Amino acid sequence: MANDGITGNHISKTSIISGFSKLNRDERIELLRNNTGVDIAPELDSFLHSNPVLQQTFSEYSENYLTNFFLPFGVVPNVLVNGEMYLVPMVIEESSVVAAASRAAGFWAQHGGFKTEVLGTKKKGQVHFIWNGQGDFLKQIFPKIEAELYLNTETITAGMKSRGGGITDIGLVDLTSKLANYYQLDVVFETADAMGANFINTCLEEMAATLKDFMTGFAQQGTLEVVMSILSNHTPESVVKCTLTCPVEELAPMSGTYSPDDFAHRFKLAVQMAQADVSRAVTHNKGIYNGIDGVVLATGNDWRAVEAAGHAYAAQNGSYRALSDVKVEDGLFEYSITVPLAVGTVGGLTKSHPMAALALKMLRNPSAKKLMGIIAALGMANNFSAVTSLITSGIQKGHMKMHLPNLLSQLGATEQQKAAAMEYFKNKVVSYSAVSSFLTA
Amino acid sequence: MANDGITGNHISKTSIISGFSKLNRDERIELLRNNTGVDIAPELDSFLHSNPVLQQTFSEYSENYLTNFFLPFGVVPNVLVNGEMYLVPMVIEESSVVAAASRAAGFWAQHGGFKTEVLGTKKKGQVHFIWNGQGDFLKQIFPKIEAELYLNTETITAGMKSRGGGITDIGLVDLTSKLANYYQLDVVFETADAMGANFINTCLEEMAATLKDFMTGFAQQGTLEVVMSILSNHTPESVVKCTLTCPVEELAPMSGTYSPDDFAHRFKLAVQMAQADVSRAVTHNKGIYNGIDGVVLATGNDWRAVEAAGHAYAAQNGSYRALSDVKVEDGLFEYSITVPLAVGTVGGLTKSHPMAALALKMLRNPSAKKLMGIIAALGMANNFSAVTSLITSGIQKGHMKMHLPNLLSQLGATEQQKAAAMEYFKNKVVSYSAVSSFLTA
Repeated sequence: MANDGITGNHISKTSIISGFSKLNRDERIELLRNNTGVDIAPELDSFLHSNPVLQQTFSEYSENYLTNFFLPFGVVPNVLVNGEMYLVPMVIEESSVVAAASRAAGFWAQHGGFKTEVLGTKKKGQVHFIWNGQGDFLKQIFPKIEAELYLNTETITAGMKSRGGGITDIGLVDLTSKLANYYQLDVVFETADAMGANFINTCLEEMAATLKDFMTGFAQQGTLEVVMSILSNHTPESVVKCTLTCPVEELAPMSGTYSPDDFAHRFKLAVQMAQADVSRAVTHNKGIYNGIDGVVLATGNDWRAVEAAGHAYAAQNGSYRALSDVKVEDGLFEYSITVPLAVGTVGGLTKSHPMAALALKMLRNPSAKKLMGIIAALGMANNFSAVTSLITSGIQKGHMKMHLPNLLSQLGATEQQKAAAMEYFKNKVVSYSAVSSFLTA
Repeated sequence: MANDGITGNHISKTSIISGFSKLNRDERIELLRNNTGVDIAPELDSFLHSNPVLQQTFSEYSENYLTNFFLPFGVVPNVLVNGEMYLVPMVIEESSVVAAASRAAGFWAQHGGFKTEVLGTKKKGQVHFIWNGQGDFLKQIFPKIEAELYLNTETITAGMKSRGGGITDIGLVDLTSKLANYYQLDVVFETADAMGANFINTCLEEMAATLKDFMTGFAQQGTLEVVMSILSNHTPESVVKCTLTCPVEELAPMSGTYSPDDFAHRFKLAVQMAQADVSRAVTHNKGIYNGIDGVVLATGNDWRAVEAAGHAYAAQNGSYRALSDVKVEDGLFEYSITVPLAVGTVGGLTKSHPMAALALKMLRNPSAKKLMGIIAALGMANNFSAVTSLITSGIQKGHMKMHLPNLLSQLGATEQQKAAAMEYFKNKVVSYSAVSSFLTA
């Protein structure tokens, strides 16, 4: 059934291509041309960087690399975090996100700014294994295993220790009530300014080998089978809290046609609704991650890890709920979010991607802890802005205004039509059908 | 306290910048130069597209736009979904993701491929409101409200109806047990090939106005306060299931040093562990989203929406668990994942971003339903590959091999050192410290 589709003129809808990853870029593109029937080489080439050395770096980021995908790199000014002002880079395709964050940041810069506190930076990983002997025997000899685990990872952890990190705890977890004979080595790491994934996984794989070796000496007690060794992206102990506080009366610039009191009341209701109802909670948190991911991407961090950690954290008490809390008391408005974040300012792509390196430079090369605070502040800025829009003018007015240029491009508007439409929709509701009608009128 | 930092030579750590969004790009960059002390204009400019028309499109994607952020655009060959072969574009910064997906796709293309089934495409949105009158009164007059809601959204929904979508249900939800006087209009939408966010929000804001108007006629029964109107990113009824099946004995090419039976046994254990333990579940699902997000980004869809929906879905039965299921029975291996997906192949950036448009072309311009299947298949490909690595060789061997070029760049290796390192580490374990030692030896 398999045939080599590389030399043919046309890839059938079912033929298997062998050796694709061994082709060079030109050969890959030629194959794609045969497959799509369109000469896509000039278009793909147009997205390459003009500096060949830099381009080489980008070409090495992924197997079967074709070209660079462009996402807008924007900046949010006036982000005041713990008394320090930042211009924060964001990478995100949604047109209203930078504007929303900027609006909130500008307001809060004049009202004390974002106060952030890192509640912990512990990361964890596990060696998952099956032990068919007595659990008590395992627990009894565990101190000896533990000593071996520390000993055999010493060469791996030496560098990290010198940077203030390392392994801080090793536990034995009995999960046999969930799955027959299931145990874990549950290992706690500090990883300084790195996200630490590679360091953690390297340690865990060494620990798995040590554990297996050690237990072969007790074959008469049972058999131990290591199933896998890997870091956990669940990081409920690597957490940052971000808080905004101001007198209710100072909320006037954000409250639209409402009084500051009514605005605060409606804001509180909106957050309570996101705590009470999962349909609302998911969208509320999505708005937080609009801001968080923008900075995560810009700084070369891993947004899938950050998203998975955040939403699992939102669900940790049995029902998925909002990551934020609000208090309106004695004329004071206080809003906070608490999110887990495992990010780095060294390692991964943070320094090797030139734009990520520039993004970190714009943030004055922060420590991982400082970056946690800045990222949380942007999550909060976006969420504050989104909730503010929702409870005042509604979300569509601002959002669609930002999206208008995209709509016009999509509908093939000429430059002249674009200018006319931007003028026409200044005070009108933007929608796909309204813009479409305008262009065909 | 606020001062205008634009004209000064140096932005202090606390000064507020006013009117930043009204500056043009050159002025913004000049201000950044003053702020960072480095002339970043040449670097930022080097990432612009050489075609000014195209570049103009990118410049309009975001407020406070500076330049384009490059992410690698790669391709996964041999993705066989429901009997059709695809070359699937992926945009992701993690170096091992495309390689991992390709490995799984290539194997499964020879064993029946990915079978996908869209279980639903319903999206929802809510008008969240407070009603301080009797709930029974609201329920009693609801049919009349409902009729008005359909009537007043007719002009908005006409276009979508002609494409096979529209509003399919409007419900009244009583959430007063969770929060005093809290009710929702809970509205179900079909959005054809669009993700539908703007359409849904426009409908809901119109509905909110209608609801308020209608209830002013019943002021003696109580007061109704609309708090907000917005789509929900929780989409447990817009779901796709993806399944892989083959005889256990055919798993031999993936089973490493294990027999196919032992491999299947270990694979089953690994999935059961991810169902039993949240620390493992989060990472297991993160691996699924490595694949999903790669295609979501490449096709111009909104990854925050997709991530939020997926992880909330994973938590919907009270404890966060793996999104996949496994069965090994009668010599047959069957693996499936079920994920919510709200994505579009029209609207948003899907057609206006030239690379997203090309990505969709590479996929033969699929319907939204087909795209759901392809995305789920890539999620599954990555997860299958990750679990396979974890239970056979361990994850670090392959991952660090892929990451080696990045490490070398990061450590400032010369071309000669790079070549030597690639050769040296062919059969050795790659780690930051090992590579660092090699370079300084």
